[in-house]
Amino acid sequence: MPSSIAAHPDRLLPADPGTREIARSLLSRVQDLPVISPHGHVDAAVIEQNTPFPDPAALLVSPDHYVTRLIHADGVPMDQLRASGSRDSREVWRRFVEAWPLFEGTASGYWLRTQFEQVFKLGADLGELSADTSYDAISAKLVEPGFRPRQLFKDFNIEVLATTDDPLDDLASHKALTEDPSFNGRVLPTFRPDAYINIAHPSWASNVERLIETAADGGTGYAGYLAALENRRRYFVDHGAVSADHGVRTPATLKLEAAEAGALFEKARAGNATAADRDAFEAHMMYQMARMSVEDGLVMTIHPGSYRNHHGPTFEAFGADTGHDIPFAVNYTEAIRPLLQDFGTAKDFHLVLFTLDETVFSRELAPLAGFYPSVYLGAPWWFLDAPDAMLRFRSAVTETAGFSRSSGFIDDTRAFCSIPARHDASRRIEASFLARLVAEHRVSEDRAHELIVDVVDGSPRRVFKL
Amino acid sequence: MPSSIAAHPDRLLPADPGTREIARSLLSRVQDLPVISPHGHVDAAVIEQNTPFPDPAALLVSPDHYVTRLIHADGVPMDQLRASGSRDSREVWRRFVEAWPLFEGTASGYWLRTQFEQVFKLGADLGELSADTSYDAISAKLVEPGFRPRQLFKDFNIEVLATTDDPLDDLASHKALTEDPSFNGRVLPTFRPDAYINIAHPSWASNVERLIETAADGGTGYAGYLAALENRRRYFVDHGAVSADHGVRTPATLKLEAAEAGALFEKARAGNATAADRDAFEAHMMYQMARMSVEDGLVMTIHPGSYRNHHGPTFEAFGADTGHDIPFAVNYTEAIRPLLQDFGTAKDFHLVLFTLDETVFSRELAPLAGFYPSVYLGAPWWFLDAPDAMLRFRSAVTETAGFSRSSGFIDDTRAFCSIPARHDASRRIEASFLARLVAEHRVSEDRAHELIVDVVDGSPRRVFKL
Amino acid sequence: MPSSIAAHPDRLLPADPGTREIARSLLSRVQDLPVISPHGHVDAAVIEQNTPFPDPAALLVSPDHYVTRLIHADGVPMDQLRASGSRDSREVWRRFVEAWPLFEGTASGYWLRTQFEQVFKLGADLGELSADTSYDAISAKLVEPGFRPRQLFKDFNIEVLATTDDPLDDLASHKALTEDPSFNGRVLPTFRPDAYINIAHPSWASNVERLIETAADGGTGYAGYLAALENRRRYFVDHGAVSADHGVRTPATLKLEAAEAGALFEKARAGNATAADRDAFEAHMMYQMARMSVEDGLVMTIHPGSYRNHHGPTFEAFGADTGHDIPFAVNYTEAIRPLLQDFGTAKDFHLVLFTLDETVFSRELAPLAGFYPSVYLGAPWWFLDAPDAMLRFRSAVTETAGFSRSSGFIDDTRAFCSIPARHDASRRIEASFLARLVAEHRVSEDRAHELIVDVVDGSPRRVFKL
Repeated sequence: MPSSIAAHPDRLLPADPGTREIARSLLSRVQDLPVISPHGHVDAAVIEQNTPFPDPAALLVSPDHYVTRLIHADGVPMDQLRASGSRDSREVWRRFVEAWPLFEGTASGYWLRTQFEQVFKLGADLGELSADTSYDAISAKLVEPGFRPRQLFKDFNIEVLATTDDPLDDLASHKALTEDPSFNGRVLPTFRPDAYINIAHPSWASNVERLIETAADGGTGYAGYLAALENRRRYFVDHGAVSADHGVRTPATLKLEAAEAGALFEKARAGNATAADRDAFEAHMMYQMARMSVEDGLVMTIHPGSYRNHHGPTFEAFGADTGHDIPFAVNYTEAIRPLLQDFGTAKDFHLVLFTLDETVFSRELAPLAGFYPSVYLGAPWWFLDAPDAMLRFRSAVTETAGFSRSSGFIDDTRAFCSIPARHDASRRIEASFLARLVAEHRVSEDRAHELIVDVVDGSPRRVFKL
Repeated sequence: MPSSIAAHPDRLLPADPGTREIARSLLSRVQDLPVISPHGHVDAAVIEQNTPFPDPAALLVSPDHYVTRLIHADGVPMDQLRASGSRDSREVWRRFVEAWPLFEGTASGYWLRTQFEQVFKLGADLGELSADTSYDAISAKLVEPGFRPRQLFKDFNIEVLATTDDPLDDLASHKALTEDPSFNGRVLPTFRPDAYINIAHPSWASNVERLIETAADGGTGYAGYLAALENRRRYFVDHGAVSADHGVRTPATLKLEAAEAGALFEKARAGNATAADRDAFEAHMMYQMARMSVEDGLVMTIHPGSYRNHHGPTFEAFGADTGHDIPFAVNYTEAIRPLLQDFGTAKDFHLVLFTLDETVFSRELAPLAGFYPSVYLGAPWWFLDAPDAMLRFRSAVTETAGFSRSSGFIDDTRAFCSIPARHDASRRIEASFLARLVAEHRVSEDRAHELIVDVVDGSPRRVFKL
Repeated sequence: MPSSIAAHPDRLLPADPGTREIARSLLSRVQDLPVISPHGHVDAAVIEQNTPFPDPAALLVSPDHYVTRLIHADGVPMDQLRASGSRDSREVWRRFVEAWPLFEGTASGYWLRTQFEQVFKLGADLGELSADTSYDAISAKLVEPGFRPRQLFKDFNIEVLATTDDPLDDLASHKALTEDPSFNGRVLPTFRPDAYINIAHPSWASNVERLIETAADGGTGYAGYLAALENRRRYFVDHGAVSADHGVRTPATLKLEAAEAGALFEKARAGNATAADRDAFEAHMMYQMARMSVEDGLVMTIHPGSYRNHHGPTFEAFGADTGHDIPFAVNYTEAIRPLLQDFGTAKDFHLVLFTLDETVFSRELAPLAGFYPSVYLGAPWWFLDAPDAMLRFRSAVTETAGFSRSSGFIDDTRAFCSIPARHDASRRIEASFLARLVAEHRVSEDRAHELIVDVVDGSPRRVFKL
C-alpha cells in the first residue's frame, strides 16, 4: 500500500539495520517535544482570528511557491495555478493532482504526503485518488472545528511560532494573542526591515518617509531614520520579538562614519544613488543593525545569496515569491568581517548566518561559528531544508563546529499545516546523523541521547533567547 | 578471481543488503532497454563505412584523453602513447598495461575493465595477462566480422546515437545511413558552431568567411552570418539533427541590438576585437542561438567552465583534446538570465545546462530547472560521469527538482566500444539512488520502478525530442 | 562504558557489517606501519633536548587553536585559556573540562579522546572524571621517563617527522639529532619563506635585509635576495630538508622579467608597494620558488585560501594562530597556470596543492593532478582532516585521479601527542573508503590490500622523496 510510506515509522531513517535501530531510539527521545519555530512566515492574524482555512487549492497549492514552481516547470502556465474569474479552486487542484508525480523525491512532496496522511487523513496516496475525491475529502476536513488554526496550533504541539513583520506593523494580532487567556501558545513578531534598508526596493523612499514621520520622535534625515529604526525595534521587543531578520543580496557589511552614511542616505532619497552607493549603504546598515542588536538584544539573522524575481515577465504578471528566486555563490569570510571586528565577541549578541550556497558550510560558516561567540550556523534553508541536504549540512559542519553552534531547525514556512511534517523530518535527520556517529563509535549512545535533545530543543531556545 | 569484479552482477550497487536487493530489482527493469545516446563524439563515417577498428592501442589508448592523461601524469611522455615512426602500437599498448594499476578506482578504469570483460572477453583482469597476450587477444577480436561497427551497434542495443558535427559538414554519412535499408539504427548529427562563434578560435575569421560564402544565400556581413547559421541549422534539422551543442568558456548570455552586434562582428573580422568585445559577442551569440532554437526546434545544450588546453607546450606539440582541459568555477544564475528572460518559457524550447562545477547543481541548476519549463539539468558530464559523482548529482538536485527535469544519461564519448559500459554504469547508479529512497521510505517501490524507466528511457526521449 | 568508544577496534569504520568486515581486514594491513609525517609544526628542539612536556593545560589546551577556538566560541574569553599571573594551569584545565561536551562529533574531540585513552590511559571518558582527577593523572604521566619526547617518538612508531622552519634558522637541533647515534628517527627541517616573500608581513623589510646580509654571499638587491633564498634552500637540503612550504593568500603565480621583479622589490623595500604590486610580486615569487625547486629538488607545497587573523582585536591581544584563520573560496585553474606552463612537466619536480575549499577537489585539483606529472593532491588539511571530510575528499578525487596522485596523510600538527591518533584516524578512513569500493565490486579485495599500503606508506615516501 503506497500510502504506507508517509506513515512508515522508519521513514527517512538510514537503511543499515544496526544504524536504523539506533536512530529509532534517538528519534523516540524527541518525537514528542514541542515545536519551536523561531523563524517563519505564518500570518499572526490567521491564528488570532482563528479563521477557517480556505479551500484545498488556496491552502496548499497557490500560495506555496515550492509547489507552483515545479508544476510551472512542467509547462503549466502560472495563472492556471491560481483560482480567479472562471477558474475555480477545484480546477487548480486538478492541475496539482495531475502534477503530483513530479514531486517524487522532493522535499515538497514529502511534506505534502505527510500532511495528506497525518493532518488530512486521506488514507491513500494522492495519486491513487481522483482529484475530486481528495479535494472533497480535504474540503470536508477544513470546515471541521478541529481544523481551525488555534486547534491545529495545539494539536501540532507548537510552543513558539515566530512571524515575520513589517517594522511599522502595529502587531495588534500578536498583542491580542498575548492578552487572550484562552490561548496558551507564543506567537512572536520578527522585525524585518529589508524594504526600509534596500534602496533598490521600489517603495524604499516612501517607506523611509513614512518611517521617519511615524517613529522618529521628531527626528529627521539620517539621524531620524536610525532613531526610528531603533524605536520600532524597541516596539517589537516590547511585543515579544526575539529576532530581526535580514534578507540581503550579499552578506557585505561596512562601517561608515555618520557623515558619510548620512550623505549616501540623502543621495538615495533624492534618487541619485549609484549601484555602488546602494551597496555601500546597505552594507553599512547591516553594521548598524548589528549595533542595534547588541543594544536591544534582538537576535540578528541574515539570509543572503538569492537572486530575487529572476524571471522578469513572471514577476510583472504575478509578483514576488512566485518560485524564481535563484541562489548564487556567496562569500561570507571577507564580507562579514567589518561587522565581526566590532561585534563578533559582543556580550549576548547572537548572529545567525544562513546560506543557500552549500559550499560555505564547511569552508566559512563552521570556522566562523567555531570561533566567534556571536556567530551561529543557520540551519539548512529553503532549497536545502530537505533530508539529504540536511545530512550534508551536519556532515559539513560538525567536525569543525560540533553540535552547539547551530541554530536548531528553522521551518521558514508560510504553510501552517506543513509545520509538523517539517519539524518531524528534521528530527528524523538529526537522529539519522547521530545514529551514524554512534554506529561508527564516534559518539557514545548515551551522549547521542543528550545531544539530540539539545539540538532539537536546547539550540533554538538558547540561540533565539526563548 | 579478480576478473569477477567486472562481471559481478552487483557491481556499483550499494553494500547494504536490503538496499542492494531493491537496487537489483530496479536495475532488472532497465538493463535491457535500448541505448539512447543524444550527445557524443563517435564519427558517423565509422558506422557508415563499417570499417574494422584499428589495433588495440589506436582504438583504446591513443585517442582517449581520459586514459592518456593519467599515464602522462605518471611521467610517461605523451609521444610514447601514440604509435608513430619506429614506435609501433604494441609498444604503446605495453606502456598502457604497465600503467593499468593507476586506473584502480577511476571511471576510466571501470569502463575499460568492463569492455575487456564483456566486449573483448579477455577472461582475466588486464593486470594478470602479459601485454602481448592482451594485445593479441584484442587484435584477434578486432578482425572478426562480429567486431565491425555496425554489428557492434546492433549488439550494443543502440537505438539512437548522436554525433557532433561542423556546421558546414555535408552530413553525407548520416544521409547514407538513413537511406541504407540494411541499417536500422538512428545516427543523428548535432550542430556544433563553436568555431564559428568563438572569436578567439584560431580559424574563426576564415570559418566565418567560408560560412557566409557557402550558406548565406548571397547575404553578407552580420546579417549574412546569422542567415548562414540559420540555413545550416535547417540543413541539420533536415538531416535528422535534434540538438545544437555549445562549448563555451562561461555561460554568459547577452542581448545586443543588431547594429551593435554587427559592429562587434566587423571589428572582430578586422582583427581588432578586444577581450571584452569577444566576450560580449559570444554572449550575444548564445542569445541568438537560443532564438534560433526557439524557431527551428533544435534542443540547445551548453557546456561551459573548462579551461581548454591548459598546458601550452602539450597543446603545441599534440593539439587539442589531449587531457589538460581543466574545469573552473561557474556561475549560471546571473549569466544565463538575459537568455531566460526572453526564452525561459518559450514554447517547446529545451535548454540543457551542463556543468563541471558540482557546486552549481544544488545551488543554481536545480532551482533553475525547477522553475523554467525550458531548462533541463544536464547529466553529470566529463569528470563527473562516474559512480560517486553521479550519486552526488542525484542527491544534490532531486530534493529541489525531482526526477522529471534532468536530461537522462549523456555518454559524450568518442570511445564507441565503451558505450555499453557507460550506460550500464549509469543505470546501476540510478538504481542505487532510487533503492536508497525506497529503503528510506521516501519513494514507494512501485513508483521507483516507474521512475527508473522514465529516467533511463523517458527523459532522453522527451528532453531531446526523440 | 563510554570510554569504550575511543578504544573500540571498529571506531570510524563503516556501519554496514559486510563493509566493516572488509575495512577491518584492510586496516590490519597498515595499522602497524611506521608514521611518516612529511609536514607539521613540532619544534625540533623539543625532540633534541628531550625536555619533559609541561603540564596538561600547557600541553593540550593553550597552544592548540583547534581546542581554544571552540571554547572561545562558547563564550570563554581567550585569556582564561592560558595560564598567566594568578591563573594557574589547573584553572585552565578546569575551563577545558567544562567545555569538553562541546567537542562531541569534532575532529579535535576525536584526537583528544584517543590520546586520553591510548597515550595517557585515563581509563574513563574525560567527562566522567573531575577536572582535578584528570589533571593529576595526566600530570603524573608527564613526569614519567616514558613520557619524554624521544621515548614517545619511538613508542609512536614515528619514522620521519618534518618540522617547519625559518629560512635563517641554523637547524642546530636537526643537526644534533642527525649526529646523535642514540636517536634513530629522522627529524627533517622544512623551508618556509612566507615572512620573506609576503610583503604585507609586518617584518618583511627587516627579514629581507637580514636575509641578504646573512646569506647573499655579498650580493645585493633583488639578485642578492634570490641568491640568498637559493643559498638558504641549499643549506636546508644539506640538513635533510625534502620540501619547501608556502602559506599564501591565493594560489596566484606569475612570471615577471627580472627587471620588473627587481623594480617591484625595491618599491616594496622603500615602503611604496601598492596592493597590486604586492600581489604581483608574491605571485612572481611562487614562480621563482618553483624554479628553485626544479633546480634543488625540494618538494613545493602550497597552502592557500585562509584569511589569517580574521578578528583584529584577538590578534592584537593574543597574536597569530589563535583560532580565527577563516577559509575562503579558491580558484587554482587560472592562478597556477603560469607556473605549470613552465614547470608542470619538469623532471622530478613535485608540487603538492592543498585547499581549504573542498569544491576545488573534484573541479580543479583532481583534473590537474590527473594530467601534470608534477602535481599532487594535498591531503585534506586543517578543518578538513576529519573523518567525513577525508571520505568526501577520496570520493571527490579518486574517480578522476585514482590513488597514485595524492600526497598521503599530512598531520600538520604542533600537538606531538596527537600524532598517533591523527595517523590512525586517517588509516581507518582509507580502509573505510576502499572497503566500500570492494563491497561495490569496484576494486578487488586483493588490489585494495595493495592500494592501502601504497596510500599510507608508499605515497608520502614517493611524493616527498623520502
